[in-house]
Amino acid sequence: MRVFGIDPGSARTGYGCVESDGSRHRLVSCGAIVMPSRAALAERLLAIHRQLGELLAAVHPDCVVVENLFHALHARSALTLGHARGVAILAAAEAGLPVVEYTPAEIKRAVVGYGRAEKTQVQQMVTMLLGLAVAPTPLDATDALAVAICHLHRLGPLSRAEASAASGRRQPRSWRQVRIDS
Amino acid sequence: MRVFGIDPGSARTGYGCVESDGSRHRLVSCGAIVMPSRAALAERLLAIHRQLGELLAAVHPDCVVVENLFHALHARSALTLGHARGVAILAAAEAGLPVVEYTPAEIKRAVVGYGRAEKTQVQQMVTMLLGLAVAPTPLDATDALAVAICHLHRLGPLSRAEASAASGRRQPRSWRQVRIDS
Repeated sequence: MRVFGIDPGSARTGYGCVESDGSRHRLVSCGAIVMPSRAALAERLLAIHRQLGELLAAVHPDCVVVENLFHALHARSALTLGHARGVAILAAAEAGLPVVEYTPAEIKRAVVGYGRAEKTQVQQMVTMLLGLAVAPTPLDATDALAVAICHLHRLGPLSRAEASAASGRRQPRSWRQVRIDS
Repeated sequence: MRVFGIDPGSARTGYGCVESDGSRHRLVSCGAIVMPSRAALAERLLAIHRQLGELLAAVHPDCVVVENLFHALHARSALTLGHARGVAILAAAEAGLPVVEYTPAEIKRAVVGYGRAEKTQVQQMVTMLLGLAVAPTPLDATDALAVAICHLHRLGPLSRAEASAASGRRQPRSWRQVRIDS
């Protein structure tokens, strides 16, 4: 099963794609769509939408997972985040993919084991679970990978194995064979 | 000059297109994209994006105007509104159109004359300025028309006339010749 996680933001949108055979996870690709600080809102949304559409077409995930964040946000920053989130979810829907959402606490609980984990703990667990020698960069990419891993853990081992068998995808030769797009 | 106003919302997105020769305004079309209450977020965003794209291609406006609303909103409703707003601005950007934003107070001031006007006053002014016998329905459409009229008033008579001449569009035969899509 292949899961594509997105950590949306109007300045930086992280993405990370993880494949799992039901017990082990493999990094397919990760990175961030970074916008120039002077770019207009319309320009940012065009870039996020187009690049996510291209990435989804390239990695062919089974589903898209997005963080559902609204607590501890001001209305203004929630509106800004909503723009990026809206076009990210649109890109997934246009690709015909189901969209799943989790809160930050659900993601931390599923990845680290408890809902109030620190950023660095999430980063360490993502690095370990993907069998990487170093933490993926930038941080937005790690956050997106955590979102994807959360979904795999929430599905449970059986569902992941079933989904993997059903998708009929060739298993990677080595779990160390990773590619990082950033 | 032809201005396309949008009043975004994830349940109902109002739209209204107004043409002006620099002194008088004419209703081109208006209506609302209404989503079934059970529709998933991704489904709503797909519908708003697709329908706005089709409308913009049909009416060929010179620019798109969107209300910039974040005051007096909770973070959760701001995030929800942001989704719809994001795909609306994306549709405008994909059509190659400039996007202009005004706050609710700026819209009321430009249409009614003062920033704390009531909804009914805005509705009455939109009806009068467009030379309509009855108020356009639904209310979301009136709000979108107010946004478009705000932009025309903010541009000033000279700019509107210049834009109208530059666009080289045939002037309508009668200001009463209106069409309402709803």
